[in-house]
Amino acid sequence: MQELIIGIDIGGSKILSGILDLKGKILTCKQEPTPAAYDAGQVLDGIASTVRELMLELKAERSDILGVAAGVPGPLDYYNGIIKDPPNLGWGEFPIRAELSKRLGMQLLLDNDANMAAQGELRFGSSKACRNLIYITVSTGIGAGIIINGQIYRGQDGGAGELGRMRMIETTGSAAFQCGQDLEALASGTALALEAKRLVKQGRGQRILALGKMAETITAREIGAAARGGDPEACAIIVRAGYFLGMAISNIANLFNPARIVIGGGAGLGLREFLLEPIQKAAAQWVAPSINQNLQIGFTALGDELGLLGCAAAVLNEMEKPLGLY
Amino acid sequence: MQELIIGIDIGGSKILSGILDLKGKILTCKQEPTPAAYDAGQVLDGIASTVRELMLELKAERSDILGVAAGVPGPLDYYNGIIKDPPNLGWGEFPIRAELSKRLGMQLLLDNDANMAAQGELRFGSSKACRNLIYITVSTGIGAGIIINGQIYRGQDGGAGELGRMRMIETTGSAAFQCGQDLEALASGTALALEAKRLVKQGRGQRILALGKMAETITAREIGAAARGGDPEACAIIVRAGYFLGMAISNIANLFNPARIVIGGGAGLGLREFLLEPIQKAAAQWVAPSINQNLQIGFTALGDELGLLGCAAAVLNEMEKPLGLY
Repeated sequence: MQELIIGIDIGGSKILSGILDLKGKILTCKQEPTPAAYDAGQVLDGIASTVRELMLELKAERSDILGVAAGVPGPLDYYNGIIKDPPNLGWGEFPIRAELSKRLGMQLLLDNDANMAAQGELRFGSSKACRNLIYITVSTGIGAGIIINGQIYRGQDGGAGELGRMRMIETTGSAAFQCGQDLEALASGTALALEAKRLVKQGRGQRILALGKMAETITAREIGAAARGGDPEACAIIVRAGYFLGMAISNIANLFNPARIVIGGGAGLGLREFLLEPIQKAAAQWVAPSINQNLQIGFTALGDELGLLGCAAAVLNEMEKPLGLY
Repeated sequence: MQELIIGIDIGGSKILSGILDLKGKILTCKQEPTPAAYDAGQVLDGIASTVRELMLELKAERSDILGVAAGVPGPLDYYNGIIKDPPNLGWGEFPIRAELSKRLGMQLLLDNDANMAAQGELRFGSSKACRNLIYITVSTGIGAGIIINGQIYRGQDGGAGELGRMRMIETTGSAAFQCGQDLEALASGTALALEAKRLVKQGRGQRILALGKMAETITAREIGAAARGGDPEACAIIVRAGYFLGMAISNIANLFNPARIVIGGGAGLGLREFLLEPIQKAAAQWVAPSINQNLQIGFTALGDELGLLGCAAAVLNEMEKPLGLY
């Protein structure tokens, strides 16, 4: 009975592996940090071993598995299953689909994390009735999964949705946010942490530092905690990122005129209470009124597990494809 | 015999009306300035009268007309045929499809100018084999027509492609290019002219002024002529606009991963020899390598008549739609 799906959500800072049933219920899962010191092959060895553990735990056999899917950070050569030097992993160009498939002894569906999550949101989230949806992950990096007419839009070479590369030039000329000029460098979890570290180096950001212990270990999580404690420096860092996210979301809304834009990802969900207002303010100001009037912008209700749910959705979508359309 | 198509290309500064055969050959056409002092109804009266003239000239009867199509500046409520306060025409919200249809005594297809031109490029241009194409018009305003899988992509409410609203914050903090912060305010023909007028006000831009006679009458055309004469101030204005166009084109390429991006529009075509290099430089720098390697960026070979050809293409596309899919 093929009634289980294996999902693997490989992120820049953590890897979540799990086994789900056909309704998207997670039967078991395990989260591990993405080991920065390992090469891609070693990371995949670890994932294969975790998957075997999880299968043992459920007493699952190969014949119980309907399919396996993995989400990875972009850029990805989707059609060939090759990861192309993702900025947050030092893997270079790596044939991840073939290598992971070999280690698992099973075929697998591979897609970038944002496309996986977009499929999860569409099938299992509150966006079920939605035909035109853009999912944005704000995490170690930033990416978009674009759903047009109920299906992932991939573009000519399978590379669509590289939202993190959107150029947004900084206006103030101040020292703040000099970490870069594309959206990922301005508003990702990595960018937030870099900005906090920069403050600490200048003897500022002391409340963030107190939560993070050392400058080196500060992440978006500590910045969020400091902001919740009322730290104005932490709030300013997050609101500023929200401003740029809002600008990017306005740009994408004006181009795609989607029904919904759904935000997820570790940093996005962790900081949602601070991000929503600057994003909505940006949209009200910059999105064409005729597009904005019906546009819904919000956060996924599926939390950190959306990536895994997306893997299950991808497997189910693949199974439901009409024959002969491959 | 329905073997003629009426096309009307309504722009912010000029209106081109024509009659074409089914192969997109323009049999007759007439260009008129868009009268700034007239209201929408008066402009449409003029268009209807021109169309009657052109029909008389060809001795065409109503029964010879396969269809009528008109391209208008956005934003447009496509499904209801209502133009929504286009920034370069003081028309407010206006039911242009119904009003023009009434004056012509014929049904008509209405779309925004960029969508019309994109269809013209796809059917009659060098992009015939292309399934994923983005057409960008750089004219009085800036807009995009997005072709996905061989068809215009309209989004949820028919408003997709509002590229002119893309926010691009100015970096230099210098006095130059303070005219605004979205692409249309930085790189449209209108923006170029405003920048030249600003220079002239400061006693600079004298070579542009000499060509334009008065500051008030300077357009992108005079700036182009001055640049061709070697005027460094004119060149700087155009190259700067090219930089922002290049940034916007990189952003759109990263999101859509199209096969081709084709540029047209009066200012775009008139300044193409200066715009291509900064655009290509931007793309090489900012588009994901996996997307950029197969991406073609260029100018339409169909010139100023692309809008009219687009109207013919729209009528032919409509006729070729399978029945029952409306």
